[in-house]
This record gives sequence, structure tokens and C-alpha cells, in this order.
Amino acid sequence: MSHLIFSVAWEPNKPVVIEEIEVAPPQANEVRIKIVATSVCHTDLYHLFESMHKDGFPTVLGHEGAGIVESVGPGVTEFQPGDKVIPLFLSQCKECHLCKNPRTNQCEVAWINQAIMAGVESRFTCKGKRVLQFMGTSTFSEYTVINQMAVAKIDPAAPLDKVCLLGCGICTGYGAAVNTAKVEPGSTCAVFGLGAVGLAAVMGCKAAGAKRIIAVDVNPDKFEKAKVFGATDFVNPKDHDKPIHEVLTKMTNGGVDYSLECVGNVQVMRSALESSAQGWGVSVIVGWTDLHDIVIRPAHLISGRTWKGSMFGGFKSKDGVSKMVKDYLDKKLKVDEFISQNMTLDQANDAIELMKNCKCIRAVMSVSPP
Amino acid sequence: MSHLIFSVAWEPNKPVVIEEIEVAPPQANEVRIKIVATSVCHTDLYHLFESMHKDGFPTVLGHEGAGIVESVGPGVTEFQPGDKVIPLFLSQCKECHLCKNPRTNQCEVAWINQAIMAGVESRFTCKGKRVLQFMGTSTFSEYTVINQMAVAKIDPAAPLDKVCLLGCGICTGYGAAVNTAKVEPGSTCAVFGLGAVGLAAVMGCKAAGAKRIIAVDVNPDKFEKAKVFGATDFVNPKDHDKPIHEVLTKMTNGGVDYSLECVGNVQVMRSALESSAQGWGVSVIVGWTDLHDIVIRPAHLISGRTWKGSMFGGFKSKDGVSKMVKDYLDKKLKVDEFISQNMTLDQANDAIELMKNCKCIRAVMSVSPP
Ligand SMILES: NC(=O)c1ccc[n+]([C@@H]2O[C@H](COP(=O)([O-])OP(=O)(O)OC[C@H]3O[C@@H](n4cnc5c(N)ncnc54)[C@H](O)[C@@H]3O)[C@@H](O)[C@H]2O)c1
Ligand SMILES: NC(=O)c1ccc[n+]([C@@H]2O[C@H](COP(=O)([O-])OP(=O)(O)OC[C@H]3O[C@@H](n4cnc5c(N)ncnc54)[C@H](O)[C@@H]3O)[C@@H](O)[C@H]2O)c1
Ligand SMILES: [Zn+2]
Ligand SMILES: [Zn+2]
Ligand SMILES: [Zn+2]
Ligand SMILES: [Zn+2]
Repeated sequence: MSHLIFSVAWEPNKPVVIEEIEVAPPQANEVRIKIVATSVCHTDLYHLFESMHKDGFPTVLGHEGAGIVESVGPGVTEFQPGDKVIPLFLSQCKECHLCKNPRTNQCEVAWINQAIMAGVESRFTCKGKRVLQFMGTSTFSEYTVINQMAVAKIDPAAPLDKVCLLGCGICTGYGAAVNTAKVEPGSTCAVFGLGAVGLAAVMGCKAAGAKRIIAVDVNPDKFEKAKVFGATDFVNPKDHDKPIHEVLTKMTNGGVDYSLECVGNVQVMRSALESSAQGWGVSVIVGWTDLHDIVIRPAHLISGRTWKGSMFGGFKSKDGVSKMVKDYLDKKLKVDEFISQNMTLDQANDAIELMKNCKCIRAVMSVSPP
Repeated sequence: MSHLIFSVAWEPNKPVVIEEIEVAPPQANEVRIKIVATSVCHTDLYHLFESMHKDGFPTVLGHEGAGIVESVGPGVTEFQPGDKVIPLFLSQCKECHLCKNPRTNQCEVAWINQAIMAGVESRFTCKGKRVLQFMGTSTFSEYTVINQMAVAKIDPAAPLDKVCLLGCGICTGYGAAVNTAKVEPGSTCAVFGLGAVGLAAVMGCKAAGAKRIIAVDVNPDKFEKAKVFGATDFVNPKDHDKPIHEVLTKMTNGGVDYSLECVGNVQVMRSALESSAQGWGVSVIVGWTDLHDIVIRPAHLISGRTWKGSMFGGFKSKDGVSKMVKDYLDKKLKVDEFISQNMTLDQANDAIELMKNCKCIRAVMSVSPP
């Protein structure tokens, strides 16, 4: 297959370019997917503007998408053309020691291939050059090719221009509260950062029965939206002279039961830890960065806190996404409320700019007609 | 009461001095205790040689002791003269929001008073100068005065020259494995540091049913002892060129289920975290230091690890110590095996030197006849 439209990020810190690309046919155990809709997650911006991984370019960004299987390679039995699917940046091979262990959603294959960030495998070429598949998915594109262990089959009734959001942000935040923090009924929570990930964390805290959900963001525009998902209190760190963990500790008379960092900033990760209650507080890192170390004092933990991290909300990826789509169709989960703009793939740079300037929750780009 | 014998640490980094001290009578809710036996824990050395808290001197060290109630102040109903007791560096007031919460052993009183390290309250004077009570306990002394919320009544059958060890090290290490890490049957554990705290952690892992217990120490003399408590493997980081977490990850094909840091070194705390299995590993900080920060990468947690800290093994102090003494009398718990030397209080400097030079597990000093 050739001459398809993709938005290629040729180098860091530059606009993406709409190009025509050659897409190899699916190889053994791979499926070729026609992407119908995709959205922009902060992790795309991280790769383009922050991480400066020079060897991660040229690449096709995008990892929150949904589409339809176009063709399958040899050995694929689980999928057939016409299936509605969501590409997964985290594989679930179902055979490694991690996949077989109910306590984790990590999969050995994801780490061995280093597919998560580097995207070593790729079926794309453009102007004779190999183009990488960011996070193995590359949803800012008309077509992509992915191993079946990183594709979730979803309910045929699912609207792809909505459920594309379940490919990353919503599952990540919701699961971080429900699966990783294991928020308990009646508890007090704080969510730092109110992008789609943080708002989904708020929704997860609420679903788990939290009594009080304190939404923290430096951008007060986000607070109205947070209410929709269940936030009860709002704190803008800029409104306070004192460090934010002191503000929250005072507000809650000792700290929150659960805190979730959904920003990707190591200072905020420490603040979130310090905001959790001495004695039993649980703090979860959801935001991503590998640019900086986190610095804490042993006493932060010795005083009885628990610190965790969450990738893809702790969901076994294939199983979790299919289930979350079902929950959305059953009206147990909000998804539409995360969509702040509808655009098309040729507006990818505008969508990226909106995200960069904190002017959107999720901009959904339509790629192909369903 | 006056003219009693105490070993006073007048200043950091100097030998302690045997002095005669005035001991005020117990005030409201306090008990005066005749100490029968005490041992040296690394935290005493930390205060004397490492922390350099100038305002923590002059002080009477010692927080692992056992004795007999000599007199009680007004309002004390729980104790009477003749009771066998163990002084506690961590209070259990049974009234604060922390004591009332089953998820923690922290007590608000301990932190408000800052009694734990600074010892602001004191009933001691020497040569007209106020002498502090280290950790609120000061067991390197013939007598001490402590609020009843920091004293555990123990079985009258308990041999005080043995159960004094339950005042800190053994409960700390054992509980860190059993209560904080919550080691599961069949699991693989690593314990870093094989002092009394680490050896007790080994014993806790074994009691919890761990299948494999890897004992890690830079001093191979400790390995024989670790076997007594249930260690199955021994690793000396000095025998390896590779970082210790790589060695353990290789040995266990992916990392241990539980790792416990019982050294008090921030590099080792990070190594212990990195040695725990990606996906589900739990790492517990038990060693104490406030001299340095710990530096980690967000990815250490995002990859699915849980990091905790443990103070006094997560035991509610009064309840836990009484129960542990009972378990020892019922032969469910080893204690005698931790004692490497028997000495007397006037040999306090020798006992401290032995500990400093890693020549002992626990040196028990007899203070008064029982
Ligand atoms: N762990 C995972 O599996 C996973 C998956 C997806 C995304 N992520 C990460 O989650 C994070 C959030 O993603 P998103 O798409 O929601 O991002 P986003 O950019 O839409 O939202 C981030 C929010 O954080 C707020 N913020 C910035 N600095 C802050 C501060 N100091 N205090 C409080 N709030 C602050 C911003 O105003 C913004 O509202 C990113 O780091 C992303 O890389 C992680
Ligand atoms: N959290 C708590 O409530 C609590 C209570 C008591 C003691 N502690 C702390 O626990 C720690 C241990 O106390 P202890 O009395 O058993 O001390 P100890 O000095 O008897 O034992 C420490 C052991 O660590 C070993 N060690 C030193 N460097 C090492 C390294 N790089 N790797 C592996 N092993 C190394 C030493 O050889 C020694 O065997 C201390 O930091 C003490 O302050 C904490
Ligand atoms: Zn994402
Ligand atoms: Zn797998
Ligand atoms: Zn101690
Ligand atoms: Zn209390």
C-alpha cells in the first residue's frame, strides 16, 4: 500500500508535515489498521518538544486512536478485516511472566522491543527514509501496522471518534485511581493536573466512592470541567504563598488519603507525595518524564506513606480497553465530555498548538471516514 | 531521686561519660522505670556520630531497654510499681486520629513533641545542666521517666536481659516484613543490611512464608547468622563489578517480590527499590537517615513498583511490644540469637565501639539487678 497521508515529525521542535508514505503490508501476527479518529495526548508533545530524543525521529506521532482492520498478516486469528479496534502503546502478549501475573499490566514484550518510546519496529518509509512508529502506534496517519498483541478489538457499536480517547488518557487516569491507588469509598483524594489524564483520575476517584476530590491545577480554566467529573474542591497553587502540600495538609487536617500526579513534573511528584497523609497516604505517579530525577527525603516514606507509579492505569491493555469501551456504551463512563475540539488530521499542527497552549482537553481529529 | 548512674553523651563524636544525675519524680501520667538491661541500636550511633544535631546534646542515649516500674505519677492507672515494662520511642496515645486508625502505627503525640529525635521533655539534670532524653527513652541509665503512653507492660515471666531487644531492632525488622511489606507465602525477598534490624527482617520474611530470602551485606561475617534466621542466599556487593540491583535482578529473573533496606544509606535505598520486580515489586525503607536526599527516576515507579517506609515495623507500639514478648515466651520468635555480647552499663563505650566497628549484632548491657 502506498501514497497515504500521514503527519510526519521529521525532527524535534518543528511542526509536523503532511506527507505521503509507503506502508508495508502486515507481516506475521500483524494487522494493518485504517485509522478513523485520533486525539493528541501530552506524551506526543513530550516526544516532540521536551524529551529531545534525537534518535526518535523522523516519526509519526499519535497513540490515542481508533480504526478498522484493513488487512491481516499470516498467523492472525483474532482479527479480521472490518473489525473495530484501538491500537495499544502497551502490548499484552498474554504469554510472558508479566502478562501471566494478575498483579501487573506490564508486558515483557513492550520493554524488550523498547517499542514504547523508541518505536524500533516500523512499516513506514517516506522519500526512501525509514520513518519510526511512535509508541508502536502512530495514529496521526491514515494507516498503521501493529502486532496483534498491541491491538484491542472493541464493540462494533462503538463510535470511533469518541472511543479513540480510550487508547490512552482516559484509561490512564481512571485506572490510576481505581486500579493503582485503589481509592476507597469515603476517602479524600487530590488530583494534580487537570488534562484528560487528571480529569479521568477525578472520574476514577468519584467512581470509587471518594467523598472529597481536590482538583489542583495552575490553570483555573480547568476547574469548571473538573466539576463535571466529580471534583469537590479546587486549588490553584499560584493563589498560595505556602507550598501546595502545606495547603492541602491544612485543608484536610493531615493530608489526603490518595494523591495522583497527572502533570509529568518531578517537583509536583514530590508535592503530591508530601500531600498524602502521614501514616497511610498513597501517592501515585501518572505523569511521565525522564528528563529529571525526583528527590525526596527518607522521612517522607518512613512516616508511613506509600508511593506507586501507574502505566496505562494498571489495565492489562487489550482486556482493559475492550472493557472500558463496553462501560462507555453502557453509560458507566464519561468520554464525550473530554472532547473540547473536533478537527481533521491536516490540522494536526493546530491541534498540537492548542494542547501546548493548554487550550484544550482533547482535540479529536478525524482521519478517514468510518 | 538523685545520684544515679547514667551514661551521658555530652557532645557528638565523644565517648559517653558515666555520671551521677538527678532524676525528677514522675509527673502526671508518667512512670519512673528502673532499667534492668539495654542494648545498643544503630540509631544511637547515628545520633552520636552521624546526625550532628548539636542541639540534641547533652543526652542520655539508649532506646532498646527493659525494666521495672519504680513509681508512678498522678493519673497513672495502667501501671504499678513492680510491673515489667519496655520503654517505647514511639508513643501510642490511643486517642489521636492516627492511633485510632488501624492502617498506621504513627501517633500524633510522637510528632508534636518531636520526642522521637530531639527529646524535648526530660526529667534529668546533671551538674546543674538539663540533660535530654534521647528518643524520649534514655535506657543507658539506672532510671528513666516516661509518659505512660510510651511504655509497654509485658508478661512478668519475660527475661528482661533478652526482651530488651524488642524495644526496637527486632520489632522494627520483623514488622517491616510482616506488617509493612506484607510478604506473601512463596515469595522471593532481599534484605539489605544484616544488623539486628535486617536479621529480624529475614526472620519476618521467613515467618511470612517466603521461599527465597537473599541476604545482602558488605560484611560477609554476617552471613552465618543470617542463615540462622532463614536466609537462603547471600550476596556481598563487593564481590560484584555490576551494580547490586543488576546482580539481584539476574539472580531472580526479573527482581525480587519484596526488598527491605535495613542499612540507612540513601544509595542502598535506591538499589533496594531497583532490585524489586518491575510490575509488582514492593520495596520498604527501614534504615534511618536524614542526612541525604534519595534520588530516583520516575520510571522506577511507573514501571510498577511500590515504595514504602516502615517505622517500628508498623507495630502499634504498646500493643505490638506486649504481643511480641508473648510470642517470644511462646517460642514463636527468636530473640536470644541476636545477642552477641553481654556487658554492663559501665562498658557503654566498649559496646558502642563494637557496634561502630560492626563487631556485634546486639551487645546487651545489664544495668541493675532485676
Ligand atoms: N503513565 C502513563 O501511562 C501515561 C499515559 C498518558 C499520559 N501520561 C502523562 O500524563 C501527563 C498528563 O497528560 P495530559 O494529556 O492530561 O496532559 P495535559 O497537558 O493535557 O494536562 C496537564 C495539566 O497539568 C497542569 N499543570 C502544569 N503544571 C502544573 C503544576 N505545577 N501543578 C498543577 N498542575 C499543573 C496543566 O495546566 C494541565 O492542565 C503527561 O505527563 C503525560 O505524558 C502518562
Ligand atoms: N525505621 C525504624 O523504625 C528504625 C528502627 C531502628 C533502627 N533503624 C535503622 O535501621 C538501620 C539498621 O540498624 P541496625 O541496628 O541493624 O544497624 P547495624 O549497624 O547493626 O547493621 C547495619 C548493617 O548494614 C551493613 N551495611 C553497611 N553498608 C551496606 C551496604 N552498602 N550494603 C549492604 N549492607 C551494608 C553493615 O555491614 C551492617 O551489617 C539503621 O539505619 C537504624 O538507624 C530504623
Ligand atoms: Zn498518552
Ligand atoms: Zn506479555
Ligand atoms: Zn533502634
Ligand atoms: Zn496517638
